Amino acid sequence: MSLAIPERVLLGPGPSDVPARVLEALGRPTIGHLDPVFLQLMDAIRGKLQQVFQTRNEMTLAISGTGSAGMETMIANLVEPGDRFLVGVNGVFGGRMADTAERCGAVVEKIEIPWGRVFTKEQIIEAVDAFKPDHVALVHAETSTGAHQPLEGIGAAVRERGALLLVDCVTSLGGAPVLIDEWAIDAAYSGTQKCLSCPPGLSPVTFSPRAMEKLDGRKSKVQSWYLDLTMLRNYWGDSRAYHHTAPINMLYALDESLDIVLEEGLDPRFARHRSMHKLLRDGLAELGINYVSQEGHGLPMLNAVSIPDSTDDAEVRKALLADYGIEIGAGLGAFKGKAWRIGLMGHSATRRNVELVLSALKHILSA
Amino acid sequence: MSLAIPERVLLGPGPSDVPARVLEALGRPTIGHLDPVFLQLMDAIRGKLQQVFQTRNEMTLAISGTGSAGMETMIANLVEPGDRFLVGVNGVFGGRMADTAERCGAVVEKIEIPWGRVFTKEQIIEAVDAFKPDHVALVHAETSTGAHQPLEGIGAAVRERGALLLVDCVTSLGGAPVLIDEWAIDAAYSGTQKCLSCPPGLSPVTFSPRAMEKLDGRKSKVQSWYLDLTMLRNYWGDSRAYHHTAPINMLYALDESLDIVLEEGLDPRFARHRSMHKLLRDGLAELGINYVSQEGHGLPMLNAVSIPDSTDDAEVRKALLADYGIEIGAGLGAFKGKAWRIGLMGHSATRRNVELVLSALKHILSA
Repeated sequence: MSLAIPERVLLGPGPSDVPARVLEALGRPTIGHLDPVFLQLMDAIRGKLQQVFQTRNEMTLAISGTGSAGMETMIANLVEPGDRFLVGVNGVFGGRMADTAERCGAVVEKIEIPWGRVFTKEQIIEAVDAFKPDHVALVHAETSTGAHQPLEGIGAAVRERGALLLVDCVTSLGGAPVLIDEWAIDAAYSGTQKCLSCPPGLSPVTFSPRAMEKLDGRKSKVQSWYLDLTMLRNYWGDSRAYHHTAPINMLYALDESLDIVLEEGLDPRFARHRSMHKLLRDGLAELGINYVSQEGHGLPMLNAVSIPDSTDDAEVRKALLADYGIEIGAGLGAFKGKAWRIGLMGHSATRRNVELVLSALKHILSA
Repeated sequence: MSLAIPERVLLGPGPSDVPARVLEALGRPTIGHLDPVFLQLMDAIRGKLQQVFQTRNEMTLAISGTGSAGMETMIANLVEPGDRFLVGVNGVFGGRMADTAERCGAVVEKIEIPWGRVFTKEQIIEAVDAFKPDHVALVHAETSTGAHQPLEGIGAAVRERGALLLVDCVTSLGGAPVLIDEWAIDAAYSGTQKCLSCPPGLSPVTFSPRAMEKLDGRKSKVQSWYLDLTMLRNYWGDSRAYHHTAPINMLYALDESLDIVLEEGLDPRFARHRSMHKLLRDGLAELGINYVSQEGHGLPMLNAVSIPDSTDDAEVRKALLADYGIEIGAGLGAFKGKAWRIGLMGHSATRRNVELVLSALKHILSA
């Protein structure tokens, strides 16, 4: 590689900083995707993912693609042409699910609220009662707005009405509680490069027995060959039937990153994310910088804030990168040029980084 | 990672042994997918892939998934519902393309010949004239049978008849000539874990201007969101519009592996694969082991051979793995239990490995 890879401090919307242990695991010698040792590793990863997702779902695995591949796996496997798909849109990623469901032939209904806000349980139930969907899709952690959607009680209400609850927890998994079983979530997907602090390239997913029944009852083939769970489950399951060559080294890294998460413990890890978030929030307030997400519903790991008036968005981000090696995220979609996204995810969520980014912003904004 | 990763010699159908330089690149610190340095790396990779594919196609990139994701990218982007799709089936991977094209709504016609054999140009032209397809799909290197499909002249004939030529070169790229422009191939996909000797996880693809015209003329959206080239080209192109988070570290590794390929030079690399193949073939002949692929059309990098009579398939592979740390491949599909697949791909294609596997087989078979 002729390019020198610079040393960054990753405080954007992901990837987050990857611990040396994970990079070391990533670089171990490649072995075969049907090697008995690799098959053992897959089983170990499934078990650790079940712990992190707080689920007993047998169908818990890592998809061989990034978070968006996980999204498509969830939708392409569960949605059949003509299915009714209700989706909450309050940022980029709800819109993305709507687009994907349409490509799968669903009849899509969006509940839309302003970006940065979250849905009430009542809003969702009302929409379910009106639209009578087969699927209800929500974004737990909206990476484009920093909004933290409460999910307690929604799954039970959706289930009572005969629909499946599908959830994007790309940014929350490993940084805030994601209680798949307790919240009665039927399918969820995440990414490795956020609060798990593993490089991007895999998407942890989990499917409830009810979701698998829906899959088994399909009248048509899953439209994606690569993401077809009816075949993937044979490779991840006991028959070990070859489907595609798994991204072996990425799975080494995921396993190591899950070890780190579980060694810290989920509750202490969530507490660390909350306390680093508070530290940053207080510091930003002193600089007069405000959040764009609804009061009381900000994500701990992703701080979307208004760019102060008469500040040059790109210049500030450029100075952070050039002078400090700090990456923060630009605004996405409706928030382009209006918001910054400061991530404190996984390994990046440290007091050192909070104080660094606050100090750097203070210097640059007062220059 | 609590599991110890064993030291293997990878002589199966891929992954192949990964050079230390590539593993070292893989383990470098992760940076952002929109970092200016990472965007430079993407441009560098495109240029190197163009050299390896021997093409000037602007639309040359690495898909964020393994080889099968590249296959689906090719088919899902180019095939519209109702398109006529002619596919040569002489092993597992032609059948896989047929399945995928059906999932994309194509009217699929298979030309089938016995496994291990290759198509003549005349057979293909005759089928094209009879079926009048929009697409003709062929497998250049059939990894399930070791057959090496000649492609010279087929592209021109297909083009004259108004169809696109789509090619699977997962196993050939970097180990035997793949002349995208000279052979008038309109779209092709490969994998990183075969003759490029990079870990699995990315799929190099290339699309001709004609293929891109077909994409631009679509009446319907590409059915996959994750693999939609109309969006991917904006991320890989000048606008750098965010689509998904690229598997950053995997791209470090791919860049390094392409450097190694280009430092050796394509022609010397192909010659090395041919001479190692000859060495293995001669040695296997001495052991009385015969190839299952058609005489004169064996792949240099993948040697599919008949399992000798009264030999226990699984026991031999188990002994190779346990006593020597050598992985060879089992038979796939129709060849399950009947063939072994001995790969000499990229970094694995050395005299040392050829003599090792011959010596090990000799000991085990005479035990």
